[in-house]
Amino acid sequence: MTALPVSSTEWKEWPGRRSSQVQAILRLALEEDIGRGDVTSEATVPADSVARAELWQKAGGVVCGLPLVREIYAALDPGVTVQLLVPEGSWGERRVVAAVSGPARSVLSGERTAVNFVQRLSGIATASRRAAEAVAGTGLTVLDTRKTTPGLRVLEKYAVRTGGCRNHRAGLDDGVLIKENHIRAAGGITAAVRAARSRVSPLTRIEVEVTTLRELDEAVAAGADLVLYDNGSISDLQAAVARAAGRVPLEASGGITLADLPAVARTGVTYVSLGALTHSAGVLDFSLEVQ
Amino acid sequence: MTALPVSSTEWKEWPGRRSSQVQAILRLALEEDIGRGDVTSEATVPADSVARAELWQKAGGVVCGLPLVREIYAALDPGVTVQLLVPEGSWGERRVVAAVSGPARSVLSGERTAVNFVQRLSGIATASRRAAEAVAGTGLTVLDTRKTTPGLRVLEKYAVRTGGCRNHRAGLDDGVLIKENHIRAAGGITAAVRAARSRVSPLTRIEVEVTTLRELDEAVAAGADLVLYDNGSISDLQAAVARAAGRVPLEASGGITLADLPAVARTGVTYVSLGALTHSAGVLDFSLEVQ
Amino acid sequence: MTALPVSSTEWKEWPGRRSSQVQAILRLALEEDIGRGDVTSEATVPADSVARAELWQKAGGVVCGLPLVREIYAALDPGVTVQLLVPEGSWGERRVVAAVSGPARSVLSGERTAVNFVQRLSGIATASRRAAEAVAGTGLTVLDTRKTTPGLRVLEKYAVRTGGCRNHRAGLDDGVLIKENHIRAAGGITAAVRAARSRVSPLTRIEVEVTTLRELDEAVAAGADLVLYDNGSISDLQAAVARAAGRVPLEASGGITLADLPAVARTGVTYVSLGALTHSAGVLDFSLEVQ
Amino acid sequence: MTALPVSSTEWKEWPGRRSSQVQAILRLALEEDIGRGDVTSEATVPADSVARAELWQKAGGVVCGLPLVREIYAALDPGVTVQLLVPEGSWGERRVVAAVSGPARSVLSGERTAVNFVQRLSGIATASRRAAEAVAGTGLTVLDTRKTTPGLRVLEKYAVRTGGCRNHRAGLDDGVLIKENHIRAAGGITAAVRAARSRVSPLTRIEVEVTTLRELDEAVAAGADLVLYDNGSISDLQAAVARAAGRVPLEASGGITLADLPAVARTGVTYVSLGALTHSAGVLDFSLEVQ
Amino acid sequence: MTALPVSSTEWKEWPGRRSSQVQAILRLALEEDIGRGDVTSEATVPADSVARAELWQKAGGVVCGLPLVREIYAALDPGVTVQLLVPEGSWGERRVVAAVSGPARSVLSGERTAVNFVQRLSGIATASRRAAEAVAGTGLTVLDTRKTTPGLRVLEKYAVRTGGCRNHRAGLDDGVLIKENHIRAAGGITAAVRAARSRVSPLTRIEVEVTTLRELDEAVAAGADLVLYDNGSISDLQAAVARAAGRVPLEASGGITLADLPAVARTGVTYVSLGALTHSAGVLDFSLEVQ
Amino acid sequence: MTALPVSSTEWKEWPGRRSSQVQAILRLALEEDIGRGDVTSEATVPADSVARAELWQKAGGVVCGLPLVREIYAALDPGVTVQLLVPEGSWGERRVVAAVSGPARSVLSGERTAVNFVQRLSGIATASRRAAEAVAGTGLTVLDTRKTTPGLRVLEKYAVRTGGCRNHRAGLDDGVLIKENHIRAAGGITAAVRAARSRVSPLTRIEVEVTTLRELDEAVAAGADLVLYDNGSISDLQAAVARAAGRVPLEASGGITLADLPAVARTGVTYVSLGALTHSAGVLDFSLEVQ
Repeated sequence: MTALPVSSTEWKEWPGRRSSQVQAILRLALEEDIGRGDVTSEATVPADSVARAELWQKAGGVVCGLPLVREIYAALDPGVTVQLLVPEGSWGERRVVAAVSGPARSVLSGERTAVNFVQRLSGIATASRRAAEAVAGTGLTVLDTRKTTPGLRVLEKYAVRTGGCRNHRAGLDDGVLIKENHIRAAGGITAAVRAARSRVSPLTRIEVEVTTLRELDEAVAAGADLVLYDNGSISDLQAAVARAAGRVPLEASGGITLADLPAVARTGVTYVSLGALTHSAGVLDFSLEVQ
Repeated sequence: MTALPVSSTEWKEWPGRRSSQVQAILRLALEEDIGRGDVTSEATVPADSVARAELWQKAGGVVCGLPLVREIYAALDPGVTVQLLVPEGSWGERRVVAAVSGPARSVLSGERTAVNFVQRLSGIATASRRAAEAVAGTGLTVLDTRKTTPGLRVLEKYAVRTGGCRNHRAGLDDGVLIKENHIRAAGGITAAVRAARSRVSPLTRIEVEVTTLRELDEAVAAGADLVLYDNGSISDLQAAVARAAGRVPLEASGGITLADLPAVARTGVTYVSLGALTHSAGVLDFSLEVQ
Repeated sequence: MTALPVSSTEWKEWPGRRSSQVQAILRLALEEDIGRGDVTSEATVPADSVARAELWQKAGGVVCGLPLVREIYAALDPGVTVQLLVPEGSWGERRVVAAVSGPARSVLSGERTAVNFVQRLSGIATASRRAAEAVAGTGLTVLDTRKTTPGLRVLEKYAVRTGGCRNHRAGLDDGVLIKENHIRAAGGITAAVRAARSRVSPLTRIEVEVTTLRELDEAVAAGADLVLYDNGSISDLQAAVARAAGRVPLEASGGITLADLPAVARTGVTYVSLGALTHSAGVLDFSLEVQ
Repeated sequence: MTALPVSSTEWKEWPGRRSSQVQAILRLALEEDIGRGDVTSEATVPADSVARAELWQKAGGVVCGLPLVREIYAALDPGVTVQLLVPEGSWGERRVVAAVSGPARSVLSGERTAVNFVQRLSGIATASRRAAEAVAGTGLTVLDTRKTTPGLRVLEKYAVRTGGCRNHRAGLDDGVLIKENHIRAAGGITAAVRAARSRVSPLTRIEVEVTTLRELDEAVAAGADLVLYDNGSISDLQAAVARAAGRVPLEASGGITLADLPAVARTGVTYVSLGALTHSAGVLDFSLEVQ
Repeated sequence: MTALPVSSTEWKEWPGRRSSQVQAILRLALEEDIGRGDVTSEATVPADSVARAELWQKAGGVVCGLPLVREIYAALDPGVTVQLLVPEGSWGERRVVAAVSGPARSVLSGERTAVNFVQRLSGIATASRRAAEAVAGTGLTVLDTRKTTPGLRVLEKYAVRTGGCRNHRAGLDDGVLIKENHIRAAGGITAAVRAARSRVSPLTRIEVEVTTLRELDEAVAAGADLVLYDNGSISDLQAAVARAAGRVPLEASGGITLADLPAVARTGVTYVSLGALTHSAGVLDFSLEVQ
Repeated sequence: MTALPVSSTEWKEWPGRRSSQVQAILRLALEEDIGRGDVTSEATVPADSVARAELWQKAGGVVCGLPLVREIYAALDPGVTVQLLVPEGSWGERRVVAAVSGPARSVLSGERTAVNFVQRLSGIATASRRAAEAVAGTGLTVLDTRKTTPGLRVLEKYAVRTGGCRNHRAGLDDGVLIKENHIRAAGGITAAVRAARSRVSPLTRIEVEVTTLRELDEAVAAGADLVLYDNGSISDLQAAVARAAGRVPLEASGGITLADLPAVARTGVTYVSLGALTHSAGVLDFSLEVQ
């Protein structure tokens, strides 16, 4: 597997520091694990004992979430030092990705929370990397969806970018996607697009979800900026691209797997969105090993 | 697959109402999805339009998280009514599990958050049901671990119970589990157990993680209440059970899969803990369909 | 002044209930005014005394913020009833807009907070109405900016809509507006637009701020969705519209007043944004009168 | 306009650090503007680019809120340095009041929030300075009211002091002001004052609002510490001062403008309170210019 | 012990509903006791079991905090009903003061939190009642201090009032009390009083703490509204009253006990403040008995 | 009174840094005392004045809470330095336990909050020391209960440990204690213990409260890990120890005082729990003296 062009400065694009949502989930994760205190470490590890631990990646994949390890330990104990040893977003097999040093109790207390975050985000980044490689050079862009783990939206979308795919909208306030129910409520595609256009910020695009070529035509005529063709077969998508004729970019969505991507790319759609990038990526194995 | 004895009153054991952690993750999930508002629904759906939607389970498994659907909509709009149509924790294939009625905008705005929770918790409950069935009648109890999704600990442990398995400790404050690093820091198993015994609440048990029979002996002699045999083969576990000779219950842990459970059960250990119950359960497919 | 078509259902579009930011500013406002308690009312008004008060609009303008009066009193005392007597967003001169009934202490304690919100939001809605009327029938759309009162962004943008104008982006996460500093950092307009296009969600438009026709050309060529012509004179704007030639909509901004709007409209730009709508609208006089 | 004696140590009297309300509004302001991230800066400005920007005051007035600029950037990014270049509370025309240096993305992301606070607080400080100058040497003290922007009470009252006026009570818990409704509920001025005296802390004064000389007499007789003469004409105020005869200080209030202050001062009242200091001060123009 | 005139409407003066501090301590108390759930009740009490419990007062004293019982159960489970059976603030010996009915698990889960609050507040109310009776008819008013339990200030000051004493200032923002350190920093009593007078709200009184008659004279001359004579003997206080000669009310403070109150009353001081009312009142015994 | 073996490293076991509950009560305590600001210090102490103060212990006892003094001042003003001069948990009579240096206003503003915490926690630590000494060498362990001050649970239990006693469970989620009401609801001791055993974590012990020897037998037979003998006389306890015959440890509880401890120890029970350790310990006198 060859490296994709994810720059090491991606690291600096870590959303955590300024994001109140990252801060909130971090606090919640520490509270739920540590609660009233790590009774085992407090009872068995001398208060002045120090330790150095290594965070090991134990399977092939893209590491993601390293800056969070630093934030977790900073929140637990400012006396702990975290060194990040590989670039965030880099691919590796079995390797040490970070080193954690300081008071032994604190090093141990943060272990599970740190690993729980990193294994999940790295799982998503790895799945994203695989998807990005599957479409490399084809002109197709792979997007995520809003099918993310509750509370982890900002982090999981960061993992998708870290893996080399791109983000669809971040939430319901961040773009218009008119689906079947909106269309029915508004009285048709044309009415829905016009209502949206007359109300949303001029910086917001409008996408319409369709399942037929007739709906595609109506969406384009109504001025949609983007059309999502839902649950289309490969030949449906080909037909849709032909009918759109460059008037509007198309997004394919619905039940598409990694294996389908090359065929989807050949249809000529511009975007494909995969819920599985976030909801079914699985975890990548990591462990913190004290030395 | 036959029904396991998960009573319908499990429903009333939903931890959400009183749990500040459930309230926190619920609020966070709604904020991250809805942000400044659902611009699509506000623009295309008339304010006085009403809708009824059905929450469909679309694959075989145990439904879990239904009370959360009610809480999500209550937080969004008190005008929305949620009817739960099947018992929480029941097994089904393709079926309607809940109905949501009220202002159409609100019904649509809560869709993704509700489905994101239910699909994940039901995935865990289903995996737990499979594990519980695999050991039914054997005397082996399947436990979860602390390898849960950050922020969702309370909910995921509830899903494990709903599926028919049991919970290991909830957090670091909720039981003593002495691992290799603690042992080294304390100067041996005996010292570690004694230190713990002299400090923790009389209502807290002490478990020691071992990897050899010699360590097992030392743990038992030191007064451990429970011994975790880590990464043992089936024959290791058999030997450990023989050596423990009923003096202390044993827990098997480390890389055990669903397929291994019958063999593990035959070794005679009392508990087995599976990280995969929570970190690799996958999602169970659900969708909210407006009528 | 004739009524503009602001429907009475705008009322139902009140963002308060679901918005954590509205809830936060509401709580903050009550805390800062009431603190440890309304010592005057508690000392002088019998606990069982009841009162009815009227919220009077005392000058011509558009009332805005009435649903907030209901939320303020609900937060203070569920025993207080608030009746809204005129449509949110309606124009009036001297009139009663709401009635507040219940325990006299509570009616008095909420007075100042309620009036402080309504007078400010009504001031903005009134200024927006004047701007909307100034461009009625011309095809020019008046937008707000991010020059809002800290903490009141969601409410002030709601007041702008209530008055009949439209909202530009809600925050820095909600659209791309490339200004001079971004252009310099990116190495030119073309580089900046391409960098943005390659990263942001497909549902996000890209606007470029320019001050010359050459920059306008470059922005259009680079694929900007919208061009903001900053601080242009009327003739600059005319020239820009001619040069854009329909390839991209134009937004005028910078030092434009209500009196300038007809002339701006005649230039043919699509949007004009006015910081003064929010930062200099002034308050509309209201008072709560107990009967 | 000559400088009033606002010491540069006023700076150290900045209430922000210890005030949970200042911290709350600051957090709210950053969240509402930055939300999920500054997508424009993240997309167009290299992560390692640095910048220096100057905060320009662009019109004559009193600068106020500079310490907040420092707190805003500290919250955003500890790598940003803020230098305050003029004394908080000083009068100036066109000048640089602060310099902001550090990572370019962070410098740009904080711009709007910083300017939004400073322009509003400086507007209030400037209006307060004008009022303080209008009464300089007369013995009349100008006070603010509780007619402040919701959520900004502590900051706006600080701006009033920075401009050279003084604060009336901070909230309903911070002094007794008996108005018409309280008097009616208590059964008269005498009863109301006695009820208040018997309940409030010995460190709290009692003020009574009156509109006639008879009420003034009753308030004084009942033991009011201060009397507010509401909506009185200049001759009413003269009569009230004569009748009070030094037994109690008088406060004039109600519809008084800057232009009225010299005449009010000549009546001999001790205090005058102006709602317009906070609710109608307007903004003072500032901008952040990157170099 | 005869009843003092604490009206049953005191009940309605309960500060809880509107006070963010009461809400915060209530939430904190429930979280610290219930944490992740009441495992005993959940394991042993059927989900549909209902119970009725009585809150018994088991020693002579003034009951205080009953409205809090209602709020605690409302927060835990809206299905629980709480009836208050005696007036808040009434004196009793052994009696039932409230009844709690509803789901048995919830009734049991809230028991400890409810009793912990009521026993402490009733202890303070009872001590206050004893102090109030000791000075009844003497003209001396007993005040509390800021020596309260951290986090319970608002509640403990309410208990003091419920018992029949009065409150000194609620916090550092709520009145000026110039002590020795302030005097030294300001350069003398006169300078300190003048500095305070020139800055604080006209609704705030200024008290000066003195330990000699010379300081008393200076404080009065400087315009103090109130003088606290610290750690004075009975004869010191007599001398101070004589010297003050009615020019200013005096407060006695420092090491005064319940037994000293009659003698203090005879000195003619207006106020006496007792830290022991809150920090050493002890608890009054209560228990919740399920039937 | 001779020193008990409380190591000076107990200091490092301070729960504050990582505990969200300690942070919450600390913030609440500062907010309730300082509110909108320390008006006296701001008015009378120059902003650039510095001070050094000593925290004096004024009576014999165990000091507890010193790390909190540091946290309080860190929260107030990072410019303040706090030196801890004696070991946390050490016994002393009249002595200086800490020194506080920095801006005089901040030193003064934090005084009351710091002293309020330390006097209460030191009172509890001192009572615990007395209890620990009363049982030294006897094999009896003294435990606390959940009868703590609302909001201070974590801190008060820390004070109990600091004084040399041990903690019973921290909350309802942290151990099973089956009392009479649970037994009745479950249908007997045996049913209750079995229900609990089948549900709680294998790391949680089960304690049963009994009042007769027959119940004791049933609890032991049902598999209780621990038995609490409630309200037993000394001879009851002796009989219970004889009957338990080492099968299970016994805890004595209910109305036991310091004076009873030697007799209780002689009965041979393993644990005794004293509510009075926390709810009736009284305060130990401290004061902050500025130099």
